[in-house]
Amino acid sequence: MTVPGTRALLERLLGGPLAAAARTRGERRVVRLAKLLRTLVTERGESSGAVMARRAVALYSGLDEHGRELLFELLARDFSPDPGLVLAAAQAYREEPSPATLARLQAVAEPPRQEIFRRMNMAAGGTSVLVGMRRAVLALIPRRPHLAVVVDDLTHLFGSWFNRGFLELRRIDWGTPAAILEKLIAYEAVHEIRGFPDLKRRLERDRRCFAFFHPALPGEPLVFVEVAFVDDLPSAVEPILSLESAIGDPRKARCAVFYSITSCQPGLKGISFGNFLIKQVAQDLHDELPNLRQFATLSPMPGFRAWLRRQPAGEGLAGAAAIREAAEAEPAAAPGEAIREPLETLAAHYLVREWEDNHVLDPVARFHLGNGARLERINWMADPSAKGLRQSLGLMVNYVYALEDVERNHEAYVNGRVVACSPAVDRLARLAEAEWPLAGEA
Amino acid sequence: MTVPGTRALLERLLGGPLAAAARTRGERRVVRLAKLLRTLVTERGESSGAVMARRAVALYSGLDEHGRELLFELLARDFSPDPGLVLAAAQAYREEPSPATLARLQAVAEPPRQEIFRRMNMAAGGTSVLVGMRRAVLALIPRRPHLAVVVDDLTHLFGSWFNRGFLELRRIDWGTPAAILEKLIAYEAVHEIRGFPDLKRRLERDRRCFAFFHPALPGEPLVFVEVAFVDDLPSAVEPILSLESAIGDPRKARCAVFYSITSCQPGLKGISFGNFLIKQVAQDLHDELPNLRQFATLSPMPGFRAWLRRQPAGEGLAGAAAIREAAEAEPAAAPGEAIREPLETLAAHYLVREWEDNHVLDPVARFHLGNGARLERINWMADPSAKGLRQSLGLMVNYVYALEDVERNHEAYVNGRVVACSPAVDRLARLAEAEWPLAGEA
Amino acid sequence: MTVPGTRALLERLLGGPLAAAARTRGERRVVRLAKLLRTLVTERGESSGAVMARRAVALYSGLDEHGRELLFELLARDFSPDPGLVLAAAQAYREEPSPATLARLQAVAEPPRQEIFRRMNMAAGGTSVLVGMRRAVLALIPRRPHLAVVVDDLTHLFGSWFNRGFLELRRIDWGTPAAILEKLIAYEAVHEIRGFPDLKRRLERDRRCFAFFHPALPGEPLVFVEVAFVDDLPSAVEPILSLESAIGDPRKARCAVFYSITSCQPGLKGISFGNFLIKQVAQDLHDELPNLRQFATLSPMPGFRAWLRRQPAGEGLAGAAAIREAAEAEPAAAPGEAIREPLETLAAHYLVREWEDNHVLDPVARFHLGNGARLERINWMADPSAKGLRQSLGLMVNYVYALEDVERNHEAYVNGRVVACSPAVDRLARLAEAEWPLAGEA
Amino acid sequence: MTVPGTRALLERLLGGPLAAAARTRGERRVVRLAKLLRTLVTERGESSGAVMARRAVALYSGLDEHGRELLFELLARDFSPDPGLVLAAAQAYREEPSPATLARLQAVAEPPRQEIFRRMNMAAGGTSVLVGMRRAVLALIPRRPHLAVVVDDLTHLFGSWFNRGFLELRRIDWGTPAAILEKLIAYEAVHEIRGFPDLKRRLERDRRCFAFFHPALPGEPLVFVEVAFVDDLPSAVEPILSLESAIGDPRKARCAVFYSITSCQPGLKGISFGNFLIKQVAQDLHDELPNLRQFATLSPMPGFRAWLRRQPAGEGLAGAAAIREAAEAEPAAAPGEAIREPLETLAAHYLVREWEDNHVLDPVARFHLGNGARLERINWMADPSAKGLRQSLGLMVNYVYALEDVERNHEAYVNGRVVACSPAVDRLARLAEAEWPLAGEA
Repeated sequence: MTVPGTRALLERLLGGPLAAAARTRGERRVVRLAKLLRTLVTERGESSGAVMARRAVALYSGLDEHGRELLFELLARDFSPDPGLVLAAAQAYREEPSPATLARLQAVAEPPRQEIFRRMNMAAGGTSVLVGMRRAVLALIPRRPHLAVVVDDLTHLFGSWFNRGFLELRRIDWGTPAAILEKLIAYEAVHEIRGFPDLKRRLERDRRCFAFFHPALPGEPLVFVEVAFVDDLPSAVEPILSLESAIGDPRKARCAVFYSITSCQPGLKGISFGNFLIKQVAQDLHDELPNLRQFATLSPMPGFRAWLRRQPAGEGLAGAAAIREAAEAEPAAAPGEAIREPLETLAAHYLVREWEDNHVLDPVARFHLGNGARLERINWMADPSAKGLRQSLGLMVNYVYALEDVERNHEAYVNGRVVACSPAVDRLARLAEAEWPLAGEA
Repeated sequence: MTVPGTRALLERLLGGPLAAAARTRGERRVVRLAKLLRTLVTERGESSGAVMARRAVALYSGLDEHGRELLFELLARDFSPDPGLVLAAAQAYREEPSPATLARLQAVAEPPRQEIFRRMNMAAGGTSVLVGMRRAVLALIPRRPHLAVVVDDLTHLFGSWFNRGFLELRRIDWGTPAAILEKLIAYEAVHEIRGFPDLKRRLERDRRCFAFFHPALPGEPLVFVEVAFVDDLPSAVEPILSLESAIGDPRKARCAVFYSITSCQPGLKGISFGNFLIKQVAQDLHDELPNLRQFATLSPMPGFRAWLRRQPAGEGLAGAAAIREAAEAEPAAAPGEAIREPLETLAAHYLVREWEDNHVLDPVARFHLGNGARLERINWMADPSAKGLRQSLGLMVNYVYALEDVERNHEAYVNGRVVACSPAVDRLARLAEAEWPLAGEA
Repeated sequence: MTVPGTRALLERLLGGPLAAAARTRGERRVVRLAKLLRTLVTERGESSGAVMARRAVALYSGLDEHGRELLFELLARDFSPDPGLVLAAAQAYREEPSPATLARLQAVAEPPRQEIFRRMNMAAGGTSVLVGMRRAVLALIPRRPHLAVVVDDLTHLFGSWFNRGFLELRRIDWGTPAAILEKLIAYEAVHEIRGFPDLKRRLERDRRCFAFFHPALPGEPLVFVEVAFVDDLPSAVEPILSLESAIGDPRKARCAVFYSITSCQPGLKGISFGNFLIKQVAQDLHDELPNLRQFATLSPMPGFRAWLRRQPAGEGLAGAAAIREAAEAEPAAAPGEAIREPLETLAAHYLVREWEDNHVLDPVARFHLGNGARLERINWMADPSAKGLRQSLGLMVNYVYALEDVERNHEAYVNGRVVACSPAVDRLARLAEAEWPLAGEA
Repeated sequence: MTVPGTRALLERLLGGPLAAAARTRGERRVVRLAKLLRTLVTERGESSGAVMARRAVALYSGLDEHGRELLFELLARDFSPDPGLVLAAAQAYREEPSPATLARLQAVAEPPRQEIFRRMNMAAGGTSVLVGMRRAVLALIPRRPHLAVVVDDLTHLFGSWFNRGFLELRRIDWGTPAAILEKLIAYEAVHEIRGFPDLKRRLERDRRCFAFFHPALPGEPLVFVEVAFVDDLPSAVEPILSLESAIGDPRKARCAVFYSITSCQPGLKGISFGNFLIKQVAQDLHDELPNLRQFATLSPMPGFRAWLRRQPAGEGLAGAAAIREAAEAEPAAAPGEAIREPLETLAAHYLVREWEDNHVLDPVARFHLGNGARLERINWMADPSAKGLRQSLGLMVNYVYALEDVERNHEAYVNGRVVACSPAVDRLARLAEAEWPLAGEA
């Protein structure tokens, strides 16, 4: 593993004895912290754990950007398992797989980084610091891919710490502290919330909002979902977001629409909560409001227009020129009704047939189909906002969560690469295949 | 790994295809559960996680003792890392220690049991079930030592899940729910609590009680400590436990005595909380009550009398015969004042000089000295109860927690095998060495 | 109004200028307090209210028994409305009943004591002090009936302050703080609770306990009711109280029995909460457990045996001698089966026909019949405890609360002096009238 | 008492038998409610209280504006004390002032309306309905002054129910539910809060906000005060309200400024809480932050400009013409520096010397001086907003709460008509008297 960033400074520090090379106050702080972390993983007892954890967290929190990068490099370089010890333990385990040889294998194969992170977590606020640390390392990965080992160790720990069993589902309403509501406004990633009055409409009695929280991050939502109670499967997002809409009666609605789901913590990227959240909320609403017959989403297709641009021109085909034009116009404009049919056909194909690494290409489809939802309907001009046009020329999708089918759908998707979809969408997808020349990325 | 228990049944089941061999309803239940667990660790997605977790927990909860044993055997046999894959991954990592080879090593070296347990934890009440499971396996270890691999995996997970950062310190007082107080009465391991009125005295304003709780085990104390505010370092436990004692003023006390500390969950044995609890409580009381000058324990010496019986007779030495008699009398009786001096000398030696595996022999001394406390005083007839006489002929010990010294004491103990003790105890220990012929177990 | 107690001291103090007559420190304290109270009701602003209230409460709390008596005498003597002013205001109001004359009437007719109590209530803990004060004055009434004016003013205020709308209904269970449970044990007035284990049985899932609390008396139950879920209308109390009884399933029970209702605060005697409590609990249980068909009590007849003793001998009538003997035996013994029929007959008469001041004679019957319950059944040997025999020779009564009938029953009772009762009880009561010569107290 | 409103309808209804005259559905509803209220105060028991209360509240809540007016007329006409009975009771009490005659007097002198209101309060939400009722009657008083009797009875009850001892002081911060914060934004009466971001600045750590709540009106602030921590007694409001101001350190501030105090419930007008709130908050802040040396306000002078217009022209005096012009300009403009001195002089006079009915004329001065504050300083151009200029030509006042002096100041104000003020203000006030011809309203 070499340092691709190759700043002279980093090389100087990592090239020789650390303490001697440190020149600035910030560098000396990193050196002190590195020594402390070394002590943390070599000392036998846990006894001074809390005190040392506090010190480590305090030192880390005082690092500037440069100091943090240096620390991550040290964590990646110096706190991985020792290859020689691992090999010896693997051989011994191979020869005689006993509790003792297995225990030895575990001991040497686990990166000492994990113990460091567990120790740092003992300090008050430690979990929050570590989530922030993962965020910072993730941001460096494009430039320093070898730091992935640090991310991986945090991923492993967070997978354990943020286990569904430790999460608390809470309803968010107008009685929720403003400090939390403010975060929802800031985090919302699908349909922007324009201040408290906008949020208030989304918390009226014909709307619901739920979030997962973790006891060690009080006041910090991890993921939240917004639900609207409506009469029928919705084909446009505007009536749901409008501040002017009349407030409906939840006891008379037939359909619960998950119209927005947002992960809040970049430091927890890839630690999945969203699937649990949707299913738990669907189950709870089903129990509370027996009038609800359908649980569905109204979802964007974030990758559709970009995908469209990558397709061959389809010369000679009706509408091909207009489609190409729509795909490439800047800024994106509402497509004409004339190309509605071919566009919907292509959208069906994109969602159902375009795969990559055992998953469908579109990230939102990947999430819902992987969860066991069914692709129900493609909606023309469902989101005519600038963002909606830019992403998917205004098209949106309904995924339906039929609680009794999700497990079967999920298995068919994971094990058989089969997308559960309605007959209408299925027909569209077949049509596309027959008629259009496509890049065939999958 | 073979099954030492050798019940024919077990062999039959483990010897061939499981499903075919299962004969009773209970056995078929184990088979169903084993298949489900296999699915849990082989499926790619986490999507049906919560549903499957619920099912696994339900199946497990329905097992009888025999079914559980069978399951543990299967967990030990079928869900360990594959030695061949581990070896290959270790070699690849040795050749090129990259993020990819390290990730691969992690993936194959971690026992699939851990993933199983993480999945089961997703169900409501899962944590509690897993703590119960570890308790059950621990109880089988003497007969089936190869099940240690199951214990080890749970230990590893619990070490992560019950990290200090996730524990909540709560004061226990007379305003605490009766359901929790009742558990304290049941769990108390040092000085029996004889019902609610007895407990109430221990919660008056000149006493304190604190416990650690974990969010996933609501209403279940993990460990609790009882504190008395007194004028001086106490030399007997009776005045502290007496229901007749006058209630003192905490703002005038000079000494906080930790007179009882109890771990509540056998399923969490070996996951240490006690050291954090004592230090946190000492720190908090120090902040709240500046009048307190000393934080100390009044502790039993559980192994003293048993150790005494193992010593050579010491023929010819004054008191030797009387000491032997006291060590061996059944039931144990209060020793005569005549042998007070030699007994205290021997006690000092026992506490300070008798080591085993880098730790002092006495379990309570091991705990407090390992935490960085100082052995302050040996107290004659401090606990004349039947239990006190049986364990240590009525002797008790004060360990002192001087917050500014604990880290240094801890390091000296762990790294230098040095016991921090008062001059008086040190002198006694030296005396014993000079005068008594001892077995020298350390 | 003169002081019937006639202790010289009191006379000395009340006979002349207070300040001069006070001799002891305690007396001087009363004088200081009386002056302060005078200021409280004459100053125009409320501005220093909280400070003065704190002072008044502190002074009062420091009074000994003698001091309190003296204060109550002063309150009765010096803080009643001025008869002359009242008469003038009444005449003016008679002449012209305008807002102004009515306001003036209100101002002079309200005893200044009420303003004093409202002011004292402003201090932290003031409500609790005033409840204690009413308790103390009530205890003096037999000896000093003229203090009734002080009681009346507190009664008036408490009736307003402890309005149903300000009470909080809370379920009491094993998760309730021990400090509150302890009070239930102490207060229980019907069937003694013998410590926490006994109470625990009464809080299992086939039992319920509810209490009213007031925000200004946190942790202090005002009244509580105990409920048992059983199959049928119970005819004996032992199966309900027994610690050995199996724990039933509340979802299968058909009858909810209110087997104990206790008012907790002697200082709130006569401020009625019990009727609200029973009806609210019945309504809530009805909503929660649709399997419940009947809401009934199993109640004592506290005055029956005493009443029996006051009846004429009934010479010549069958069983009359045995009945007299049973009524007069000391200690009370279980009556023989031979006199069961006449005793039940007499009990029916006692409950239904014996009235006093527009209410039935028996205090428990008065409470339930006044609430609109129906007298359902008289139960032989339902409470064979010493207390049960002493009060009513072991007989107990079921009152049934049929939610749809309570209002009608209540009105019939209050306006028509009609007791709602079952045909069986009605028949018994008629029989008694026909056969027995009775004192006819009503 | 006659109905000045004299709508034919009202006369028709009040003129004869109610039931017969009611013609519309709304009128029949009033008749039903009036009968129910009559029952409420004549029935002997309280037993059906809760049910009837619910019915009365439901009927009332369904009334339209006309129905409510009619009801208030009925309440005023039919539920006052009977003059004849009152006179008889007053005579009896005059003849022999015993507990019995006093009790009788109380019984007949209290308007039955009060019992009606107490009964209605038993229903869930009753308190809130009654507060709304008082608001509605208050709004009618200018047109129908005889309804004052209804207001008076509610005032009397609310004075008792909203006693300081029943109020809960709560800190309002960014962790407070949005539903409560929203109300603060809506209610704020002194310096408008322009949405959540504006409010957030007022809740930062160098600001504080506290409110009183009542247990029966959860989520409804009764009164709130806003505090800023600053270095010195402030002379302008802009730096406090500015969103751009740097956030200060509360541990270094020397002065706590109460810069806004707002009563939230028009239905509780005249039931004073504000004085308790300010003093309690000052005391609490004093305990928490020993660095604070001064507790003061920055207050408006709402009546100054209006008073100025009523003064004689002061012809010949320097500045008189310019002052008159400033007092009468529409819209109000910032006065020139040239008339600063005479305007401040007149302001001092206005605040200190202008009295009416034993109170100073300016309502804000009346509140703070009545509470025992000291008039410290008059600030030129302290509030140059349109509202500030319109009310007082931009002048504002500091009142200082010196906790050790408030009681003395309050007494001097109430009993001696003495205004506590600084030497500077005192000098200005004397100057005004000497130099200006004034209307002398006091």
